[in-house]
Amino acid sequence: MDRIWYGGDYNPEQWPRDVWDDDVRLMQRAGVTVATVGVFSWARLEPRDGEFDFEWLDDVLGRLHAGGVRVDLATATASPPPWLALAHPEMLPVTEEGVRLSVGSRQHYSPSSAVYRRYADRLVRALAERYAGHPALEAWHVNNELACHVPRDFSDESAAAFRTWLTAKYGTVETLNEAWGTQFWSQGYSSFEEVMPPRAAPTFRNPTQLLDFDRFSSDAWLGVYEAEAAILREVSPGVPITTNFMGFFKGLDYWRHAEALDFISDDHYPDPADPAAPVIAAATRDLIRSLAGGPWILMEQATSAVNWRSRNAAKPDGMHRLLSLQAVARGADGVMQFQWRQSKAGAEKFHSGMVPHAGEDSRIFRETVALGEELGGLADVVGSRQQAHIAVLFDWDSWWALEQEATPSDLAYPMVVLRWYREFWRRGVLVDFARPGTDLSGYAVVVAPATHVLSTDALEGLAAYTRSGGRLVVGYQTGILDEQLHVHLGGYLGALRDVLGIRIEEFAPPAEPSISGGALPTLEIAGLAAGTAEEWGEVVRVDDAEVRSTFVGGMLDGLPAITRKASGDGTAWYVATAPEDLAAVVDEVLDSAGVAPEVPDLPEGVEAVRRGDRLFLLNWNATETRVGDETLPPRGAAILRD
Amino acid sequence: MDRIWYGGDYNPEQWPRDVWDDDVRLMQRAGVTVATVGVFSWARLEPRDGEFDFEWLDDVLGRLHAGGVRVDLATATASPPPWLALAHPEMLPVTEEGVRLSVGSRQHYSPSSAVYRRYADRLVRALAERYAGHPALEAWHVNNELACHVPRDFSDESAAAFRTWLTAKYGTVETLNEAWGTQFWSQGYSSFEEVMPPRAAPTFRNPTQLLDFDRFSSDAWLGVYEAEAAILREVSPGVPITTNFMGFFKGLDYWRHAEALDFISDDHYPDPADPAAPVIAAATRDLIRSLAGGPWILMEQATSAVNWRSRNAAKPDGMHRLLSLQAVARGADGVMQFQWRQSKAGAEKFHSGMVPHAGEDSRIFRETVALGEELGGLADVVGSRQQAHIAVLFDWDSWWALEQEATPSDLAYPMVVLRWYREFWRRGVLVDFARPGTDLSGYAVVVAPATHVLSTDALEGLAAYTRSGGRLVVGYQTGILDEQLHVHLGGYLGALRDVLGIRIEEFAPPAEPSISGGALPTLEIAGLAAGTAEEWGEVVRVDDAEVRSTFVGGMLDGLPAITRKASGDGTAWYVATAPEDLAAVVDEVLDSAGVAPEVPDLPEGVEAVRRGDRLFLLNWNATETRVGDETLPPRGAAILRD
Amino acid sequence: MDRIWYGGDYNPEQWPRDVWDDDVRLMQRAGVTVATVGVFSWARLEPRDGEFDFEWLDDVLGRLHAGGVRVDLATATASPPPWLALAHPEMLPVTEEGVRLSVGSRQHYSPSSAVYRRYADRLVRALAERYAGHPALEAWHVNNELACHVPRDFSDESAAAFRTWLTAKYGTVETLNEAWGTQFWSQGYSSFEEVMPPRAAPTFRNPTQLLDFDRFSSDAWLGVYEAEAAILREVSPGVPITTNFMGFFKGLDYWRHAEALDFISDDHYPDPADPAAPVIAAATRDLIRSLAGGPWILMEQATSAVNWRSRNAAKPDGMHRLLSLQAVARGADGVMQFQWRQSKAGAEKFHSGMVPHAGEDSRIFRETVALGEELGGLADVVGSRQQAHIAVLFDWDSWWALEQEATPSDLAYPMVVLRWYREFWRRGVLVDFARPGTDLSGYAVVVAPATHVLSTDALEGLAAYTRSGGRLVVGYQTGILDEQLHVHLGGYLGALRDVLGIRIEEFAPPAEPSISGGALPTLEIAGLAAGTAEEWGEVVRVDDAEVRSTFVGGMLDGLPAITRKASGDGTAWYVATAPEDLAAVVDEVLDSAGVAPEVPDLPEGVEAVRRGDRLFLLNWNATETRVGDETLPPRGAAILRD
Repeated sequence: MDRIWYGGDYNPEQWPRDVWDDDVRLMQRAGVTVATVGVFSWARLEPRDGEFDFEWLDDVLGRLHAGGVRVDLATATASPPPWLALAHPEMLPVTEEGVRLSVGSRQHYSPSSAVYRRYADRLVRALAERYAGHPALEAWHVNNELACHVPRDFSDESAAAFRTWLTAKYGTVETLNEAWGTQFWSQGYSSFEEVMPPRAAPTFRNPTQLLDFDRFSSDAWLGVYEAEAAILREVSPGVPITTNFMGFFKGLDYWRHAEALDFISDDHYPDPADPAAPVIAAATRDLIRSLAGGPWILMEQATSAVNWRSRNAAKPDGMHRLLSLQAVARGADGVMQFQWRQSKAGAEKFHSGMVPHAGEDSRIFRETVALGEELGGLADVVGSRQQAHIAVLFDWDSWWALEQEATPSDLAYPMVVLRWYREFWRRGVLVDFARPGTDLSGYAVVVAPATHVLSTDALEGLAAYTRSGGRLVVGYQTGILDEQLHVHLGGYLGALRDVLGIRIEEFAPPAEPSISGGALPTLEIAGLAAGTAEEWGEVVRVDDAEVRSTFVGGMLDGLPAITRKASGDGTAWYVATAPEDLAAVVDEVLDSAGVAPEVPDLPEGVEAVRRGDRLFLLNWNATETRVGDETLPPRGAAILRD
Repeated sequence: MDRIWYGGDYNPEQWPRDVWDDDVRLMQRAGVTVATVGVFSWARLEPRDGEFDFEWLDDVLGRLHAGGVRVDLATATASPPPWLALAHPEMLPVTEEGVRLSVGSRQHYSPSSAVYRRYADRLVRALAERYAGHPALEAWHVNNELACHVPRDFSDESAAAFRTWLTAKYGTVETLNEAWGTQFWSQGYSSFEEVMPPRAAPTFRNPTQLLDFDRFSSDAWLGVYEAEAAILREVSPGVPITTNFMGFFKGLDYWRHAEALDFISDDHYPDPADPAAPVIAAATRDLIRSLAGGPWILMEQATSAVNWRSRNAAKPDGMHRLLSLQAVARGADGVMQFQWRQSKAGAEKFHSGMVPHAGEDSRIFRETVALGEELGGLADVVGSRQQAHIAVLFDWDSWWALEQEATPSDLAYPMVVLRWYREFWRRGVLVDFARPGTDLSGYAVVVAPATHVLSTDALEGLAAYTRSGGRLVVGYQTGILDEQLHVHLGGYLGALRDVLGIRIEEFAPPAEPSISGGALPTLEIAGLAAGTAEEWGEVVRVDDAEVRSTFVGGMLDGLPAITRKASGDGTAWYVATAPEDLAAVVDEVLDSAGVAPEVPDLPEGVEAVRRGDRLFLLNWNATETRVGDETLPPRGAAILRD
Repeated sequence: MDRIWYGGDYNPEQWPRDVWDDDVRLMQRAGVTVATVGVFSWARLEPRDGEFDFEWLDDVLGRLHAGGVRVDLATATASPPPWLALAHPEMLPVTEEGVRLSVGSRQHYSPSSAVYRRYADRLVRALAERYAGHPALEAWHVNNELACHVPRDFSDESAAAFRTWLTAKYGTVETLNEAWGTQFWSQGYSSFEEVMPPRAAPTFRNPTQLLDFDRFSSDAWLGVYEAEAAILREVSPGVPITTNFMGFFKGLDYWRHAEALDFISDDHYPDPADPAAPVIAAATRDLIRSLAGGPWILMEQATSAVNWRSRNAAKPDGMHRLLSLQAVARGADGVMQFQWRQSKAGAEKFHSGMVPHAGEDSRIFRETVALGEELGGLADVVGSRQQAHIAVLFDWDSWWALEQEATPSDLAYPMVVLRWYREFWRRGVLVDFARPGTDLSGYAVVVAPATHVLSTDALEGLAAYTRSGGRLVVGYQTGILDEQLHVHLGGYLGALRDVLGIRIEEFAPPAEPSISGGALPTLEIAGLAAGTAEEWGEVVRVDDAEVRSTFVGGMLDGLPAITRKASGDGTAWYVATAPEDLAAVVDEVLDSAGVAPEVPDLPEGVEAVRRGDRLFLLNWNATETRVGDETLPPRGAAILRD
């Protein structure tokens, strides 16, 4: 499309048809270009086994087309009708404690269910056959937020699928035994038939079993996507296909999923009351752009409050616009909302919509109209791509492994990554997220925060990147385990030991808060980034590196906290804790790499991003803020053109 | 009876018969008038299927009668014997995760169980036939604290009963689909057979399904009462029947239950260490009096500590007397305790009794005797009724709906109600609780705090009440949903929009404490009740009303926080937050209504209530306090006569 | 053995055989004397039903023997192989909610499983027959940390075993009914067949049922030990047998277990970051020495961090040595570690080992070598016994009963005991733990802290101890219940009422923290130990005793807090709260008993223990500390010889 997608999920089945007329009128007033239709309509489309009713959908699509609104048509498979699940209870998902979940909400199916697959395929084929040539059809929208409520299913059918997946991966059970380290705790399997999902057990489950089950589950959900997409490609060739991602979602390895999509779309719901919302949102947009390798669609956001937090704050004036412009600035070619018209019943009736309960005469609908108009003026950014000089590694294997039971600490992987991301964000330096093991030669700086799982190859790739002139910043808990979760023996870090000039002897995180009376325990460092540090400490032995900071006091007194070493044409830093003044570290790295920010001396709370020939300045402060010659109103933005 | 009921649960089956003689002697010393007998004696009465043993009960009732103690005779159905549940495990209740609960505690049955019903009916009939004409029989006591541990049962038998209930309510499944809004999330049912209880599901269950299951469950427990009462009425006509309520108990809609009882009785166990205990207890007594429409019986309280909190505080000197007098002042014609003699074994052995472990020579037994004597002197209040000028709406549908998953906020309904109640209590202004939709014309003031669910009729009734001269105070989250949990579109509040002169555009509660580092976030308001406010904020648009306060700062800056409008002969206030100085609002409302407190300038911590020709002054302070000419000792009381 | 056991769990099956050569070499460097072999090797020893493979174990034992390392040979029954549990799922343990736990971790069996028993016995017999005469065999190590993950199993097979156990204990169901107090809540059983384990129920389970199920479960696990030990004694007579205890482990009554072992061994993992670690560790060593009645083996500790806390702190320099010497000082004849070589895969790979991931060139391995050398020089302490003058009662029945649901308060039993223990520890006064009901006449002082459950006989024994000249200190919540959990009526304490000269009328603990805004509520006392007190208060009535302290303020104002009475030749104190200045109470008691500390004026943070002719001075401070003429380095020790 040559315009920015603007619109939202449109669920007319919740309303009588006289409202539908009003919908098209209001969409036109708001400048809506695209509507996502049919996401939760399976029970309406197929009220009884094999009886399809498309009349109402014909009507809806006809009205939208007549109104100039294009359609992102959902395959409607996200919530099976009650009749299907009750006729086939074996398709219902099962928790790790063995509870079979019930109908009455949504996503009540196992991704491995053959019954679900058969019925979903029949529905998708029927939809594709009917609407492949519809003039309003812009894209296909497979299912919805795959895995959001059921990231892991422990049913017998999933167990069988897991065994099939393991057999394909390992070939022989001996190979599996070696990979999983089953000699420990007497877990040796004599055949694949003995292997189970990691159901509730007396104590810690096997770590590699857990990780493989995470990988399998992610793949099982990818299988749900691929089965639907295959039908769509066959019946409706040439129409692009997507499914909506959920940003930093632990359940699915989006690097793998992204490869299967024609274009990437994402749902994002930052908490308006959270001071960290702008940076979390920015990181999410950058992750999605990195997954897409270019432009993407913001598929869902709320116009104001959501309904699933314990307190659902509204968005203050301007915040919805800022978040929308932030998405465009960071690569989005679409700004879509959930949902067009706020429901009057059901589980999401308190989730804000583009047309709120209060109706047209409301702040929210006025903002809906204004945003539509503004986005209409940004059509020329559509399709333009951005190049970052910084890459931050992001890896689902590391996420899954680091947050398992029985690890060195209760580190929260995305929080460790965000500590680093934030420093680039507040300088207006664009960041890509990168998958370990891929080509990083285009980046001036690569940061590896808590990249817990790195294969020998990936470690060698990072070492080679450094020696070829790259700046590599390695954070604690990186390169500890290989892809089978076996330890890189001899000081961890594998091939990075050489470029860093260090090895790690022991981990020594500060005490649990419960020990220190609830207060978060801290460390102290001297040298670069002197002051307080948090969350992590360890015994670093320097073989050949410059010590930039040392720990002060406690059992780590005098040991290195930050090191630096020149290797070949590049430089590698190791950072063994989380300094409060991480800025000092990032300054040193950026100076060394010669990377300058988009806007010098960016004030606190202002975000700066360049896309195409436009510079977006976003003022997240509730007060007026000056940037160079520009005065940005409270929660206001300026879009400057070169 | 012409005397106040005084006594307690009497469980002689826990003791050898030589103790029984001592019991009657001590009861006489303590002025006991009534004993509740047999609550947990099913296994003793019917040790094997169909083998009844009444000999011991004949003996107990004979002794009590000889000692001048009347009997509130329990039907003994509260705890089925092990042999019954083990022969019929399908009668055991099931949790929403599918766990079938075991024998070994009490209340181990589904209220929908046909087996339970058959055996319970047989027992009740046998008891009624044997004791209908017993000279000691004062009343029948059905079961015990219905639903206290099993408010909701998710067994297959309950599922079938739920379907029957739904069929009776909705007639056709299409009507149910419309009411539940099943078009959303593809939940449309094609027959009642497909409908399930809201068992554990992947995510939020359908809200109207949840509410209907709450209503059904309350009715199922009412069915347990009604089945027993029908037998008692048939076999033992003329003897009044009750079952013991539990005050603000979320599980049952006591408005519906109260209609079925001959007289209302209540169990109440405030935490002696809780500074809010006096006001919580007062509100509970007022709720029970409102349910009864007149006098009622305090059926259970502790003489000192209970045994089910994590720390079980004892009652300081005087507190047990104060709570007892408070009950009488607020309409109780009986002050009963659980239990007469503290158990020496079993799950409640650490729950205090009228005769404690320490025996007769103890503070507790001396207080038991003194209280009996004092209550003996208050016989003339028996039967006297009270008229309040203030009604506070209280509604189980609103409670259930407001505290569901996926609501605007985590408001605790009774806490919102108590904020308002407390202001009347501390002024010595008597309050009735009232059911929405009933005739409120007798009240000078009606308060509707968070009355989340109000039908169109109920809203129109409140509007008419106002126009006819009433003072209506509407709190936040009132009139949001109708009785099917469909939104009152166009600004919420329905017919109240007109009498209030406002509409609500958006909810904007302050952030979750987790966002603000654990501190409870607050708001500020200026004008009436200026200062801090808590818990709630929203975007109020004034069509035609006087703004009495506005929000200051934040996204609501300058928007109305409190409004007032004269409508017809009355006045309506809207209060969009929880001001710390709620007193200022209540003062304005009471002034406007011309309602004066019982005692002017009541000191903090003193409660004043008039019943009949007596004025009760209760000093909850641990220090001596003067009220007019009266000096009240620490935790002391004065009962003044006109 | 005439040397201290030094070594650790050795799991060579995790490594290729070329590592085994290195293991023996490094063991010799480290002075290792004993290795525990085979703990988790069932699946390796019996990879398929009945197919045994001992070749690798022959090799391992041969290498160790050749290297001069003796072997503590495990029976390998701790973790059944997957094939066994999957062929017999009925052997898997079941939670109280009915969840059958899965394979994939360890200890996935019910201690009552006949299938498990049959297979485990076959394995033990095969091992014993093969290795009974092996020249390296030092001892047999039965199973591993019995019950650590599955202290209670609620399966049907356990239910049947529980009934058998109850039948043996009670003879008739009437006796059980009387003991359990089943007249309350209508729980009367008509046959043993009706009795169930305390599975999830609507509310509080019967307390005596709970306690008997605790006792039964402890005995069921003892049965696991005894079945294996019987085979070992038959096939391999004369070789001593142990299993590794876990210190203050609630699951098992170690008084009963200890009687069945040839020698006692213990696993202990204090949190290096916990300031209370030294005193907790000291108490644990004293408990184990008391259970053993003499020397014992420290069977497992970590060289540095563990892997199962949320933050796993490393041990600072010197701490591992201090903990090891502390064990020896308090009776250990062995200092063993888990495990020899840190795993490179599996659930415990982040648990430190004697040979860490970093290899030989590491702080940890250097400490391993140094400790081996130091322990080698302490061989002469082996076998030497110690006599304490102080006994502190420790009782699993009291632990289980005090921490049940529906008790007076949420007291944590071991924490109450540790308050007292700490006062002796900081003075360098050795303490034995003693089992209630045993002969205490050898002790100058007996302390009974929260010994909630005491039989009439045990109470009379304590009274007789006092009258014969003993000093008895009775803490709150002692002697409340008898061994059936029936109350000692008339003021609690039974026969102790006379020697104490008091009775207790009521419990009055301070409020829950939730009531007082999260702060821990405190009390005040005046007199001995004046100041703040915590956790407990009660209404004490003095019949004939000296009041040493009184409560100040609140409902207990003026009532006794601490009393003392001379009885016969002895003295008895009662302490009704937890004074912050407990030292004052202990000083008075020690003075009265004429017990002097090992070292006068011991500085804070220094521990002093005499064993044989050696005085161990352990400086837990991170700073240099002087004791008399000795200067102890930070976390340093001195071992002085007479």
